[in-house]
Amino acid sequence: MAVYHFKNRPDREIKDKAELNGILQNGRYAVLSLCRGNEPYVVSLSYGYDPDEQCLYFHCASQGLKMDFIKVNPNVCATIIEDGGYVSGECGHHYRSVVIWGEIEIIPDEHRKKEGMRVLLNHLESDPLVIKEKLKKLPSFDSKMTLLKLRFKEITGKVGR
Amino acid sequence: MAVYHFKNRPDREIKDKAELNGILQNGRYAVLSLCRGNEPYVVSLSYGYDPDEQCLYFHCASQGLKMDFIKVNPNVCATIIEDGGYVSGECGHHYRSVVIWGEIEIIPDEHRKKEGMRVLLNHLESDPLVIKEKLKKLPSFDSKMTLLKLRFKEITGKVGR
Repeated sequence: MAVYHFKNRPDREIKDKAELNGILQNGRYAVLSLCRGNEPYVVSLSYGYDPDEQCLYFHCASQGLKMDFIKVNPNVCATIIEDGGYVSGECGHHYRSVVIWGEIEIIPDEHRKKEGMRVLLNHLESDPLVIKEKLKKLPSFDSKMTLLKLRFKEITGKVGR
Repeated sequence: MAVYHFKNRPDREIKDKAELNGILQNGRYAVLSLCRGNEPYVVSLSYGYDPDEQCLYFHCASQGLKMDFIKVNPNVCATIIEDGGYVSGECGHHYRSVVIWGEIEIIPDEHRKKEGMRVLLNHLESDPLVIKEKLKKLPSFDSKMTLLKLRFKEITGKVGR
């Protein structure tokens, strides 16, 4: 994958790994770009971040437009944005963002689904009791839900204004 | 373009035109999904919304990865999200969003560029004096900048939790 970012604005690149990690830890949802032939599609999903495996987990319905795209082409380009708001009078916007290139996998087996759900719940929820209860209830909705894993091939970060 | 959204959750669709218009008016940036072959790309850009023409304007550098994608394939799927935050304990997220399918055009002539910049500045800035000053200075940066116009072919809206 030919990537040549920051040619225009090298001063805006976030290179620090801890800072990139912080954006991924703080974010609650990602916006995913998918494509099929020359048809692009965009979808926003809550995520759980696994820093050890360098991946994001998503759960969603087993059928629908995004699943149709993913089954045809697992390549994904995703972004997570920290929106600091528009800067009036300056034609600028305060933000930090990451862009991730990777491949998405539909997790097939129940054990790995549960592990992914654990990552997802630990990322999104703060109360250990809530997490425990949600994980207990998993078998009841598991079969209708799909768990997706986006493995990073490349990640970049950018800061604005 | 085969679109069959809301098969899973018809209760979440925003059908009201005034509500869709409100999300477009209130938003300050859009996330664009682009594709080239089977390679997806995602980019976030400040925009100006023209409700009469049903289009968004963006300005950006004349060279770079997004321009490479747009020149190969002008099809775009974009989203604008009103983020209401994650709902603790409920595995849910408060949001309203629109998804736009359309074709992007690189505005060629100076007159139309200026018209687009007027839409963009009126959308983003609130002070008429600032807008007037920015428009006066246009010729000085115009040649280095590209103005993009995304015409809507289809738009949908969705509300979460």
